[in-house]
Amino acid sequence: MSGSGTGGDSPLRRALAGLVRAAEPPAGAVVQFVERVGAVDAWAAVRDRSAPAAVRAATRARLADLDPSALDARADADLDTGAAVGARIVGAGDAEWPTAAFVAFPLAAARGVSGAAAPVGLWLRGLPLTGVPDRAVTMVGSRACTGYGRRVAGEISAAVAAAGAVVVSGAAFGVDTAAHQAALLGGGRTVAVLACGIDRAYPAANARLLEEIAAAGTVVSEYPPGGVPARHRFLVRNRLIAALAAGTVVVEAGRRSGTLSTAAAAGQLGRLVMAVPGPVTSALSVGCHLLLADRFAQLVTDGAGVLTAIGIAAADPVPPIGVGRDPRHPTDGLDPEVARVHEALPARRSVPAADLVVESALPGATVVAALAVLELAGLAERDGPLWRRADRHAR
Amino acid sequence: MSGSGTGGDSPLRRALAGLVRAAEPPAGAVVQFVERVGAVDAWAAVRDRSAPAAVRAATRARLADLDPSALDARADADLDTGAAVGARIVGAGDAEWPTAAFVAFPLAAARGVSGAAAPVGLWLRGLPLTGVPDRAVTMVGSRACTGYGRRVAGEISAAVAAAGAVVVSGAAFGVDTAAHQAALLGGGRTVAVLACGIDRAYPAANARLLEEIAAAGTVVSEYPPGGVPARHRFLVRNRLIAALAAGTVVVEAGRRSGTLSTAAAAGQLGRLVMAVPGPVTSALSVGCHLLLADRFAQLVTDGAGVLTAIGIAAADPVPPIGVGRDPRHPTDGLDPEVARVHEALPARRSVPAADLVVESALPGATVVAALAVLELAGLAERDGPLWRRADRHAR
Repeated sequence: MSGSGTGGDSPLRRALAGLVRAAEPPAGAVVQFVERVGAVDAWAAVRDRSAPAAVRAATRARLADLDPSALDARADADLDTGAAVGARIVGAGDAEWPTAAFVAFPLAAARGVSGAAAPVGLWLRGLPLTGVPDRAVTMVGSRACTGYGRRVAGEISAAVAAAGAVVVSGAAFGVDTAAHQAALLGGGRTVAVLACGIDRAYPAANARLLEEIAAAGTVVSEYPPGGVPARHRFLVRNRLIAALAAGTVVVEAGRRSGTLSTAAAAGQLGRLVMAVPGPVTSALSVGCHLLLADRFAQLVTDGAGVLTAIGIAAADPVPPIGVGRDPRHPTDGLDPEVARVHEALPARRSVPAADLVVESALPGATVVAALAVLELAGLAERDGPLWRRADRHAR
Repeated sequence: MSGSGTGGDSPLRRALAGLVRAAEPPAGAVVQFVERVGAVDAWAAVRDRSAPAAVRAATRARLADLDPSALDARADADLDTGAAVGARIVGAGDAEWPTAAFVAFPLAAARGVSGAAAPVGLWLRGLPLTGVPDRAVTMVGSRACTGYGRRVAGEISAAVAAAGAVVVSGAAFGVDTAAHQAALLGGGRTVAVLACGIDRAYPAANARLLEEIAAAGTVVSEYPPGGVPARHRFLVRNRLIAALAAGTVVVEAGRRSGTLSTAAAAGQLGRLVMAVPGPVTSALSVGCHLLLADRFAQLVTDGAGVLTAIGIAAADPVPPIGVGRDPRHPTDGLDPEVARVHEALPARRSVPAADLVVESALPGATVVAALAVLELAGLAERDGPLWRRADRHAR
């Protein structure tokens, strides 16, 4: 089935799918052409090789030698592939197109920022893309973050979600994963912006997380179905991650981290850039400290500070890191299955997750998910590949 | 013996000693009176109760009911007490008076900063007070600092000392002690500014450290001999700690730390305020993060950054924290006695220092000093009251 977009408007969906496949982002010339003539006419011109020179230059490689009907068929195939994974394609003019998030692109381009272009279209899975950018916070950081980074990212993301705001990130390992998970665990909404096709799970180990995000939030991609997560696409994608929120928080980043490109994009788009400090002895805090030392970023230490910085009222109360609402019963309020995994954790030694599957009589996936919850709550901690119970009140 | 000051000028030394005892700092009215008429005439007027009203008000309590000759005798006794501990008293006009360090006080006072007054006189032990403020860095932080704070303070202080600059601090436990020790260990010069009489060791456990500072650097006090380290004197003293350097580095400070008063004084005196970030989960980094979030302080992460910030060229090379110049032989370059203590440290368990005295056949004081060196070098670590060998390359 084709044309399963928000409007059910088949020629428009086909045009958007065709244009998204024909132009590698960022494609400012194509975006401007679509603005001027509309997606349907723009696609007709691109397909028929009658578009302005700049648009033809930006689309020539991807059109290959296909004739117009073959290009329409390829767009229809993309719509089918998208529909098969529950994805829809939207463009400027659609109700859920995040117009406000992308206003900054032409302004940045006018100031000479290269690559400052909105997407031509967006593939979406999950909830409508609302709340961005004003009630959204982007969380980024190292894929190889430390336990410290994971913990702080989780706390900030949980506070943002508890305040009813959206957590935007990139679904990578490390800080991204911690941010998405904490938002989901709190029943909040989170947006994952992919650097590959909407039908791909990258990294593969986050396939389940991406399903959860699609169920309780939104997965977004400006790449055609099947698009591979090529290296340069992460940098290009980062401008969208920055654009979709009022502010970007860098939790941990090495000296040359790709994360810093998101911070740079946020700054270029006039978004608030925030950074979490860490030990000066940690290589993964060097990037954050550079942003802070240059006064490019505002220092933040917790979720309340992030919300204050971007002007969103915090939900009350957000328990501070590692402190439960009721210190006498730290497991109060846990999901029963999570509590069962906590009970299965030995207090004085570390065990593999497999032992906990046996001990708790719960499925492996449930145990792993529960361990993530417990870790964020300061009730479990990793010891290499093993797990042990943690005392949330100890430091 | 009286009048053992730099000038050998007995009436002047007696006048300075008398004035220092007569006026509790900060004593702006007395400082201005001395500026106008000179210390000898100022002392004569104070002693004879013929000084201007503001000066009489500032000195009335301390003159008690003593007659002029008893007041002179008291000043002479202070000179004797000072001489007995190798201290001299200096005032404005003396060659080693740090005029440049105190220029900022009248300027700050004119801007309405209360208590912004130079000292009336300074008791000094040790080397002449040169290099301040331009080639000096003030290091302050929590008395109850963490191992992280101690380590970072040591690294920064070592780099400052290695660059030939002076490390100024307050001789308290924690960050102060780490800063003084690291400067001394590198053969550098350090200045300790006391909140009590020059003849007192406070805290008592730092008596030996103060002797070392007096031998290789300078101990300073604006209080008369015997002066007790009353609570308010620490706050008053902090303005001198700030004034004596081009910049003040806050290494660790809690939310309401007294350390923040030194940072505030540094700001009021137009000095560069710097702060070292730390984990946001550490209560002892909250004060630093507040200074950074308010953009009151510049973020610094190491000694090279501190030196750059205040415009002093770093000595080359300063090894980064925990990394030796030759990783194959981390004890290369250690003093032979220090190396002997390192050899005596067991690799896999912790022992009391007393065991190391037996094992190394070195005096207890030597072992304790060696452990401090090894700790700073990342080659030994504390385990409560015990010590063990550390791997400087492990994190």
